[in-house]
Amino acid sequence: MRQKVQLFSVTLAVLVMTSVTAEPADDIKPPMGYRNWFHVNTMIVDKASPLFDTLGGMHNVHVNSVGEAALKKGGPYPDRTVFVTDLHEFSVSDGSFVMGNRKGLAVMVKDAKKYAATGGWGFQFFAGGDPKKPVVTDAAKQCFECHVPKKDQDYVYSTYIP
Amino acid sequence: MRQKVQLFSVTLAVLVMTSVTAEPADDIKPPMGYRNWFHVNTMIVDKASPLFDTLGGMHNVHVNSVGEAALKKGGPYPDRTVFVTDLHEFSVSDGSFVMGNRKGLAVMVKDAKKYAATGGWGFQFFAGGDPKKPVVTDAAKQCFECHVPKKDQDYVYSTYIP
Repeated sequence: MRQKVQLFSVTLAVLVMTSVTAEPADDIKPPMGYRNWFHVNTMIVDKASPLFDTLGGMHNVHVNSVGEAALKKGGPYPDRTVFVTDLHEFSVSDGSFVMGNRKGLAVMVKDAKKYAATGGWGFQFFAGGDPKKPVVTDAAKQCFECHVPKKDQDYVYSTYIP
Repeated sequence: MRQKVQLFSVTLAVLVMTSVTAEPADDIKPPMGYRNWFHVNTMIVDKASPLFDTLGGMHNVHVNSVGEAALKKGGPYPDRTVFVTDLHEFSVSDGSFVMGNRKGLAVMVKDAKKYAATGGWGFQFFAGGDPKKPVVTDAAKQCFECHVPKKDQDYVYSTYIP
């Protein structure tokens, strides 16, 4: 279960960035239509979590059609696979957790050659989902370091839940 | 917020059925490919909810392409619109809620003529997502009654969250 929590350590590293920089680490853009991509899983980081301050929210993970078959096998992923975490606020009422506004979009793009230094993956996080607000400037340090333990799943924490 | 909780009262009505009947109320089948349909929203009904015994779980709502534009307008929905609630177990670890196995699929299908007696919607719930385990035998009583208050949204509780 601890491993599951680590799933979003990439986001943790990203969210602790306080500045909205003009020098993103790459040319990754927020993908279009990701809410129609395969729904991989959902996770909520709640107030009781030590990660809440940086990671709190409702995380919905999607993968594009390029990576869907690989997800079901547990990787490895072909080039042009894209994962998106659609991170939203949530509220709690009468014991139910309800989705709120978007906090941001975390994106992983596979290109074995281009991103060879970070396991073949490019990483970016867009505050509020805004293409003008990328916050990752050093993907190796802010993102990839936390994915290294998942090398046997091609550095992807998410697994297929039928 | 109370209204949001009512969103799943249809499922409540369904889940309190204890028998897996051989006489479903309609010919609705679990749709294929719904995890690639537009992701409408997520809700978790947790242990603290008075609805937990019957409704507990992680609810991911999807709508097919026929109904997507109508969702964004708040209805009404054209015939052949389908909503699916993909209901899963969840576990909690260190304050994070993690998705588990499927508990069931709740399905709403729009056909104004065929389902005129229930607001133009057909309703079904499949235990475990199994096409052989429909549990709704009286959609008017088990499902539609709880949707009547949402007549101004074409009897749909879910709303579009950008």
